[in-house]
Amino acid sequence: MDLLAHITFTQLLDYIGTVAFAISGIRLASAKHFDLFGAFIVGLATAIGGGTIRDVMLGNDIFWMKNPIYLILTGMSLIWVIIFNKRLVRQDTTWFIFDTIGLAMFTVIGIEKTLGADGNYPFWAAIIMGSMTGAAGGVIRDVFINEVPLIFRGEIYALACVAGGLLYWLLWYCGYDNVTCGLVCGFVVILTRVLAVKYKINLPVLKGEQ
Amino acid sequence: MDLLAHITFTQLLDYIGTVAFAISGIRLASAKHFDLFGAFIVGLATAIGGGTIRDVMLGNDIFWMKNPIYLILTGMSLIWVIIFNKRLVRQDTTWFIFDTIGLAMFTVIGIEKTLGADGNYPFWAAIIMGSMTGAAGGVIRDVFINEVPLIFRGEIYALACVAGGLLYWLLWYCGYDNVTCGLVCGFVVILTRVLAVKYKINLPVLKGEQ
Amino acid sequence: MDLLAHITFTQLLDYIGTVAFAISGIRLASAKHFDLFGAFIVGLATAIGGGTIRDVMLGNDIFWMKNPIYLILTGMSLIWVIIFNKRLVRQDTTWFIFDTIGLAMFTVIGIEKTLGADGNYPFWAAIIMGSMTGAAGGVIRDVFINEVPLIFRGEIYALACVAGGLLYWLLWYCGYDNVTCGLVCGFVVILTRVLAVKYKINLPVLKGEQ
Repeated sequence: MDLLAHITFTQLLDYIGTVAFAISGIRLASAKHFDLFGAFIVGLATAIGGGTIRDVMLGNDIFWMKNPIYLILTGMSLIWVIIFNKRLVRQDTTWFIFDTIGLAMFTVIGIEKTLGADGNYPFWAAIIMGSMTGAAGGVIRDVFINEVPLIFRGEIYALACVAGGLLYWLLWYCGYDNVTCGLVCGFVVILTRVLAVKYKINLPVLKGEQ
Repeated sequence: MDLLAHITFTQLLDYIGTVAFAISGIRLASAKHFDLFGAFIVGLATAIGGGTIRDVMLGNDIFWMKNPIYLILTGMSLIWVIIFNKRLVRQDTTWFIFDTIGLAMFTVIGIEKTLGADGNYPFWAAIIMGSMTGAAGGVIRDVFINEVPLIFRGEIYALACVAGGLLYWLLWYCGYDNVTCGLVCGFVVILTRVLAVKYKINLPVLKGEQ
Repeated sequence: MDLLAHITFTQLLDYIGTVAFAISGIRLASAKHFDLFGAFIVGLATAIGGGTIRDVMLGNDIFWMKNPIYLILTGMSLIWVIIFNKRLVRQDTTWFIFDTIGLAMFTVIGIEKTLGADGNYPFWAAIIMGSMTGAAGGVIRDVFINEVPLIFRGEIYALACVAGGLLYWLLWYCGYDNVTCGLVCGFVVILTRVLAVKYKINLPVLKGEQ
């Protein structure tokens, strides 16, 4: 408990998101009959993939390479899936909420890391990096399990990050501090995603030739 | 028009290539019933994916992160596909030419960025980077739509970049300036690809076991 | 022969691994009817993909961009596959051994490059980088041929790298020099993989819902 007392609220949300993302990867990998190692790697890639691509593109040190907590959380997620297995379906609502919290948190982290990076990047680039931090892990997961990435055809996901990012930009432009901007951004990401799922709001599908 | 007057000839070719690449991605995404957001992302990845990998490998700042034109052009490409939709087939020859111009331009940009980078890279590495700038976006596109990358089985594409790059090297070795080298390189890329398509020239297919 | 005399034992193992990895990529590409260029690219990506991702993540110059030997070895591998083609099956045991030597060598190289990099990375991160150097090329290969990555479902492969890496860590902790650590690490990788294949030891498969 003493250990937990040193975890900030921001870190707690980051860790919740990591576990939720890892579990989504591990579950999809297990549905494809991956072995334990494969499931662990897919879970890890889902959880840390977006942030890794962000750090590579910003020229940062990779965030998880000096802090083993992300590996440990992925290992714990794997054990969780093994224990609960088919009963995980009952936890679906909980994991949906945690996944959405993670999406919001990762977006805020991605925006702030880009604004704080050396490159002096414009704000729209920070929004893209925030959305990528939130959504790219899921794309890597789907490439690994050899499926068309869900976020390209399904529900509103990365677009919730963009909406949150735009609000961050607006408030930041109006002179608000980064805690306020981050809280509102995260809230908008969660709200957008929850409303989109609840009211089954989808983007139009392009009807192409062939 | 005043705005356009400030666009150099090189930029114009770069932008034409960006639109042609984005449209190829958006069309293939729409054939797979991606939603608008998914189609936009696939179009964007096709247009900027090769240059992004190049910049990451060279340790450069990512080229599109400080200039919103590539995002804007991808957005315009999406609108174009929505408006013309099934009538796009009639524009096939035009888009083939623009795509080939883009391939040539991206190859030249990739070669020159590598030669101008810090690493003091050999010329053959610049040719690989040029070919990757031209062809890797299409590979990412095909991975996203969950197909075997077209350039690995189909017509001569990246090999046209290699041919152009070798000519660049030859002329550069003979002491020509980079404008001449670039023009000849681009011309060879276009010529190789057009001739290969016109006369249906393909590489032999490896007949493997199994 | 004078040329070969300048190749160190370490380089020899590195080159053997490169050829074995390239051949595995080229064979799988040819089974999918890729053309010569596509097969070459898949072979190259299998051979140098893991090390490239490692160098990008460490912020190093990319290892193959200043030394053409990896391209040349991939070209030779392509010629080898063309010449032997269906008779390659008879060489399967040889290529299995060479592939395993490559896996061991790439793991050691990845660990040592991470420990020698600027970032002052912890040892567990070096083990991950070593395993990625050994195994990520095969994942890229499988993504390119549009299959679920073999190492996520099949035999023990990357886990052999992890086992070797842990032994490296233990010996290094006990004060042994890097030559001893590297030799033992490589030996453990080879032993783990050979035993796993010989006795058909696999990891348990997660039985997921759906």
